[in-house]
Amino acid sequence: MKRIALAAGLAAGLVAMMLFSGRAVAQDLIVEKKVFELASYTTTGGRTIKNVKIGWEAAGTLNAEKSNAILITHFFSGTSHAFGKYKADDKIAGYWDAIIGPGKAIDTNKYYVISSDTLVNLNARDPMVTTTGPASINPDTGRPYGPSFPIVTIRDFVNVQKALLDSLGIAKLHAVAGASMGGLQAFEWAASYPDMVGRVMPVISSGETSGNLIGWLDIWGSPIRLDPKFKGGDYDPADPPAEGLAVALKIVTLHANHSKWANATFGRKWAAEGKDPAAGWDNRYAIEATLDAAGKARAGTADANHFLYLTKANQLFVAGGESKAGLARIKAPVLLITNDEDLVFAAQEVADTVAAIKAGGASVTHLKLVGNRGHFDGVVSMSQHANAIADFLAK
Amino acid sequence: MKRIALAAGLAAGLVAMMLFSGRAVAQDLIVEKKVFELASYTTTGGRTIKNVKIGWEAAGTLNAEKSNAILITHFFSGTSHAFGKYKADDKIAGYWDAIIGPGKAIDTNKYYVISSDTLVNLNARDPMVTTTGPASINPDTGRPYGPSFPIVTIRDFVNVQKALLDSLGIAKLHAVAGASMGGLQAFEWAASYPDMVGRVMPVISSGETSGNLIGWLDIWGSPIRLDPKFKGGDYDPADPPAEGLAVALKIVTLHANHSKWANATFGRKWAAEGKDPAAGWDNRYAIEATLDAAGKARAGTADANHFLYLTKANQLFVAGGESKAGLARIKAPVLLITNDEDLVFAAQEVADTVAAIKAGGASVTHLKLVGNRGHFDGVVSMSQHANAIADFLAK
Repeated sequence: MKRIALAAGLAAGLVAMMLFSGRAVAQDLIVEKKVFELASYTTTGGRTIKNVKIGWEAAGTLNAEKSNAILITHFFSGTSHAFGKYKADDKIAGYWDAIIGPGKAIDTNKYYVISSDTLVNLNARDPMVTTTGPASINPDTGRPYGPSFPIVTIRDFVNVQKALLDSLGIAKLHAVAGASMGGLQAFEWAASYPDMVGRVMPVISSGETSGNLIGWLDIWGSPIRLDPKFKGGDYDPADPPAEGLAVALKIVTLHANHSKWANATFGRKWAAEGKDPAAGWDNRYAIEATLDAAGKARAGTADANHFLYLTKANQLFVAGGESKAGLARIKAPVLLITNDEDLVFAAQEVADTVAAIKAGGASVTHLKLVGNRGHFDGVVSMSQHANAIADFLAK
Repeated sequence: MKRIALAAGLAAGLVAMMLFSGRAVAQDLIVEKKVFELASYTTTGGRTIKNVKIGWEAAGTLNAEKSNAILITHFFSGTSHAFGKYKADDKIAGYWDAIIGPGKAIDTNKYYVISSDTLVNLNARDPMVTTTGPASINPDTGRPYGPSFPIVTIRDFVNVQKALLDSLGIAKLHAVAGASMGGLQAFEWAASYPDMVGRVMPVISSGETSGNLIGWLDIWGSPIRLDPKFKGGDYDPADPPAEGLAVALKIVTLHANHSKWANATFGRKWAAEGKDPAAGWDNRYAIEATLDAAGKARAGTADANHFLYLTKANQLFVAGGESKAGLARIKAPVLLITNDEDLVFAAQEVADTVAAIKAGGASVTHLKLVGNRGHFDGVVSMSQHANAIADFLAK
């Protein structure tokens, strides 16, 4: 019981994937969450959404030439909170705080670092997140959009970010960087707006979503569709398909990690002393109980339709809309950081991406992460390459 | 539609995992399905089950000394049908037909090769499968056991096989061999009955179920528990949780394969020409539609409770009941065949198993499979090591 309460408490934090990282950094960077509004936005699919809002935060100072901005794009279950704390006594800082801040690899003493919530952000019910998606109120009906919300793409995420940058007068980014789905956005920026991007740093991601990942994204969303409360997406916001969403988040957590971590952290430990899993169905292993508790806690601030819209956006991703041709349009130097043991973006898919970018003439530096977290090392183990990141940005 | 019908038709075959193998072998071995009955069996957990029945089949001739028997143990979604055909015009043969038969690696001209359905076999509704589990009628009530059926273990599977061998007068096996959950049974035989096993050939498996796999087995079963028709396992056999079971089988299929296969076979292909997945939720990718159709077809002959009982049996597995000490009790020479890219039994877990067996003094030959199927190469790519298997059995 104590174990479950602990897991639930930790996981309720803004970046619930931090649950297993055990990292606590003493630092001073305090960031403020702001809201960017667009009266209307027309999707790449041709649908217009009124009153689009996304949250964003920034650190550092934009220089007079507005040439020192670095955009950080977030992963599937992430938010704009990539660095700093909202309050000095926050228990955890932003997910890439190890590499972003004063004097760090992405140095907020030099750069104006900005990060925003995407459209259809998973954590729609988190009070610190502002996003527009199926859980938002449709101004035309006064009710949530639900499944009537248009399908959106990674390009749409980027286009809304571009509108935010336009509003700040930023015509060219010093760099764009992100992990996982954030890496897809970084690739999309560099392929679709090659003249607006000075450097690109995609992490644990590839230049298109593979057939394998398309299949897994479908599996991630399956538990939501099975939950009787889902009702084809037209669920009651006060009684959402929380159980299906919790299982969906459980799958993401295990898929985004690696067996080395699962075995070292949990092994065959039981969830509770004296409760042998051989003796009954309610007696479970520690890994089952912990992943369940984390999934349930994360489901509390997430939205099921947003989860499914994110799976669709990720499935549809091809950098620049044209696979290898899109990647070949990249002009910016690329620093790609991946893990060969990543189960979400496989090593071969990453190698194909490198070849396609090089074929277009851009330079690629490809660094590998070492760790036992698989995909998730791109969130929690980035300090391994802090010096290389600083050098890449300074060049 | 045609694509789905094709997938469904193929998958409805006895060994639905053959769906993606594309193998069709001309051969002459015809096998007959028989039934073995035990008036009662007491599980390792101390519960007695009356009237236990399992199906079995055999090829070759048991010699006068009854010393040439080889037992084949099946994988999670498999059955006793490891070799041969039931009728000459069967479309597919048993799953290891490439290595079992007259003149093949496991030569039925030399050996008496026998294979049985396990307890709680997944394919309880397949007319060619005989098994005892929660879908069976409890003779005390005249109704299906449902969740009142006792939890059973890999050791229980082995003990019922031992009773079958006892009934045939076989006191010692020339060898025992199996893939995946069949490998677990092979390890269990060698660790629990070291004097009854002459040689052991576990394939794509390790000597205990890892924490990582315990977590994945829980995920495999999650969709069944979410299906409103599941009712805690007390479902109506005429209206079972087929949708949840189909999703569960979909997860198993993708997890038991590898991204190389998914990308080479499906890539980003659409399920239907002209139906762009960007244009609507019902427009899907080929990998989604094919895995869905296969899952649905397989669910038609499978049982949801049996699936969950199998996940429990697999989670509980530690060879000989005592991790490294159990493996150290093995006396028989071991031929272990695995794939380093297996996502179900990871390479490090296999390496730990090899070390534990060697620590007990038994000899281990460890061969690797090469292919793009990951775990599933242990079912479809075994002919790579046909010569090594023949030599191992002849020594």
